[in-house]
Amino acid sequence: MALIVQKFGGSSVADAESIKRVAKRIVDARRAGNEVVVAVSAMGDTTDELLDLAHEVAPIPAPRELDMLLTAGERISMALLAMAIENLGVEARSFTGSQAGMITDAQHGAARIVDVTPKRVQEAVAEGAVAIVAGFQGFSRITGDITTLGRGGSDTTAVALAAALGAEVCEIYTDVDGIFTSDPRMVPLARKIDRITSEEMLELAAAGAKVLYIRAVEYARRHGVTLHVRSSFNSNEGTIVYTPVAPGHDENGAAVEEPVISGVAADLSEAKITVVGVPDVPGKAAYIFKLIARAGANIDMIVQNVSAALTGRTDISFTLPKSDAQQVLTALTNAQDEIGFERLQHDDQIGKLSLVGAGMRTNVGVSADLFAALSAAGINIEMISTSEIRISVVTRADTIADAVRAVHTAFGLDADTEAIVHGGTGR
Amino acid sequence: MALIVQKFGGSSVADAESIKRVAKRIVDARRAGNEVVVAVSAMGDTTDELLDLAHEVAPIPAPRELDMLLTAGERISMALLAMAIENLGVEARSFTGSQAGMITDAQHGAARIVDVTPKRVQEAVAEGAVAIVAGFQGFSRITGDITTLGRGGSDTTAVALAAALGAEVCEIYTDVDGIFTSDPRMVPLARKIDRITSEEMLELAAAGAKVLYIRAVEYARRHGVTLHVRSSFNSNEGTIVYTPVAPGHDENGAAVEEPVISGVAADLSEAKITVVGVPDVPGKAAYIFKLIARAGANIDMIVQNVSAALTGRTDISFTLPKSDAQQVLTALTNAQDEIGFERLQHDDQIGKLSLVGAGMRTNVGVSADLFAALSAAGINIEMISTSEIRISVVTRADTIADAVRAVHTAFGLDADTEAIVHGGTGR
Repeated sequence: MALIVQKFGGSSVADAESIKRVAKRIVDARRAGNEVVVAVSAMGDTTDELLDLAHEVAPIPAPRELDMLLTAGERISMALLAMAIENLGVEARSFTGSQAGMITDAQHGAARIVDVTPKRVQEAVAEGAVAIVAGFQGFSRITGDITTLGRGGSDTTAVALAAALGAEVCEIYTDVDGIFTSDPRMVPLARKIDRITSEEMLELAAAGAKVLYIRAVEYARRHGVTLHVRSSFNSNEGTIVYTPVAPGHDENGAAVEEPVISGVAADLSEAKITVVGVPDVPGKAAYIFKLIARAGANIDMIVQNVSAALTGRTDISFTLPKSDAQQVLTALTNAQDEIGFERLQHDDQIGKLSLVGAGMRTNVGVSADLFAALSAAGINIEMISTSEIRISVVTRADTIADAVRAVHTAFGLDADTEAIVHGGTGR
Repeated sequence: MALIVQKFGGSSVADAESIKRVAKRIVDARRAGNEVVVAVSAMGDTTDELLDLAHEVAPIPAPRELDMLLTAGERISMALLAMAIENLGVEARSFTGSQAGMITDAQHGAARIVDVTPKRVQEAVAEGAVAIVAGFQGFSRITGDITTLGRGGSDTTAVALAAALGAEVCEIYTDVDGIFTSDPRMVPLARKIDRITSEEMLELAAAGAKVLYIRAVEYARRHGVTLHVRSSFNSNEGTIVYTPVAPGHDENGAAVEEPVISGVAADLSEAKITVVGVPDVPGKAAYIFKLIARAGANIDMIVQNVSAALTGRTDISFTLPKSDAQQVLTALTNAQDEIGFERLQHDDQIGKLSLVGAGMRTNVGVSADLFAALSAAGINIEMISTSEIRISVVTRADTIADAVRAVHTAFGLDADTEAIVHGGTGR
């Protein structure tokens, strides 16, 4: 008898009908002889509605109370799901994050899991019941307070439970058929990937693929949890995300031939800031990035122009999430005299294209092929950054879709038929 | 510095604006130098909406899961209230039933409080914070599961906290100005009662007054908690419900002159069933009432007609909540041959008028005055029952308002001016 963990996001449990459909799916898995533990998100837009309410009563809600508020969302969905399962004749018990032993630090709104002690979950499963665990939430053993794990927290809950329970697989149910070689809404010929390493998945997620959250993939990679990303609307096989024993081997140690390229991701969520005319003296760049870090912004790519030798001044460009741009501009403006730069440029019309593949590691010439493909499509490249298994380039936002399609074709990723796209994205 | 417990019902926290108004009120009490602990119900219709959802996913929701679901309601209201208070510059911390130490038995949906260990509430108060406790909910130390206290549970939470914390007073905020000598919607000249004993309040609540729940008053009486029932819409003094040291004395032992009559209550929620032609042999009546008890119905008044001597048969009439009538009729019909009665009569057009007053105990002639007043108003009496401080009569439903007004006037309870009536009733 295999123990499997299933995670259902908010769009899979958006209303009573969806909850009954998910309940049926869980009951099928249980009746097929599996032990089943489920992590569930809040229904549909519940979290956003609760956030709106919070902002109506307080412009800056107290973080402890915001966590108390938001965790009501999964409490509702998990209790309804347990009722719906019991109504189908299978025993089910719902557990809050604290009842399920999801112990975190006390960082409200973005708590880290420090331990998982799912004793009550194990007891429920041992007694033949399906255990339904609230996603996204935990509690601090130090303060005794309720915490939340931040964005994508329910994925993390599922993976952490799978790791703690030694589950055979952690199934992440979503509203797409799995992980695709590119976003099917942008690239109609995108192909579903059957198997991908957690390392590649991490790069894809960091490059803008939205199906899985980086943090959950990191947790899975660290604990060797195998993920199965699949649709809650059909029973097709989805994408297996596995952690190889070593490069060129699968999760069980067998040798595999890795594809050179796994996918092409696009990200339109970033902006570019250029600090123009920075005096080219030691410590200026370091000081600029210290100010940015203090402003709480996450820098992605950095480019320093090479004009310094002639003018004694240089330009520093970097990309960051659009939502962080304003506070960084403010912080830099306040320090203009101190740093001595000439002016700031802010550009929120950029797009980032990333090519990801574990095979890139041993395959020279991938960058050359990428640049050739972009050039042939008439796409101008503004910035470049690379990791061992990823190449990212920044271009204009309005050319990104053309760029992704051109690269997808050039690297032989196109499918024979167009992918079927369901509405919305999973949570 | 006095410690006070304040309870706000669902209609007082129905939306963001109401929550901010209640927060202001709590902050005023805190800034006036009081230590403040608050018990709060779910917002407006939240509980009913959650119940509807439950019935959409399961016709008969599992009781454990129903409690898990419904307790999300207070979680939302208490977190929002705490945020709104913090936004006014006063520290506030919300606590679930289990965090506040509301320990109950494991009877889901109607749990009884077995212990109150409000350690975290006391710590919060000692640190200068306002503690907000979820009404209506607790947890079973035996099963580790979340429970709810049933109807009027938030009143009970407030009173139980007041008892455990040794609070000076437990303020019950509602949408009326206090307890009235009669329902102001029926008797425009009803007067607000300044002080009433918990014994009288119990009789009034049992006789149909809806402002306080019997169970909370019982708890207050048993633990000597003084209640202050008042409006959340103004700062008028409301009604003090106190437990005298002895009849004729107040809660501190001082002698007081109790008014003969405190109030006149009306109840239109009952029906009358008459079992016609019951053989007048020993054990028949006992058997009938055993069947009724098995059907789960609460009998209020009983009358056995005196025609038995002539016919060898008697009629037995009793009143019970309208909602219980059908199952009792079914149970009796199924046992008709066994009991040997002739037929059943069902009358759901009755009204019950109750006259309540601690002074009645030492004052003869109250019944005579009551019957005279009703007779003068042309009201026919169908059934009578009495306790030491209450007389109840059953009459036609369509004459009950006239009856209550006539009695209210006859016993000198009329105010000089009409009461102001706000919409709705408190929860």
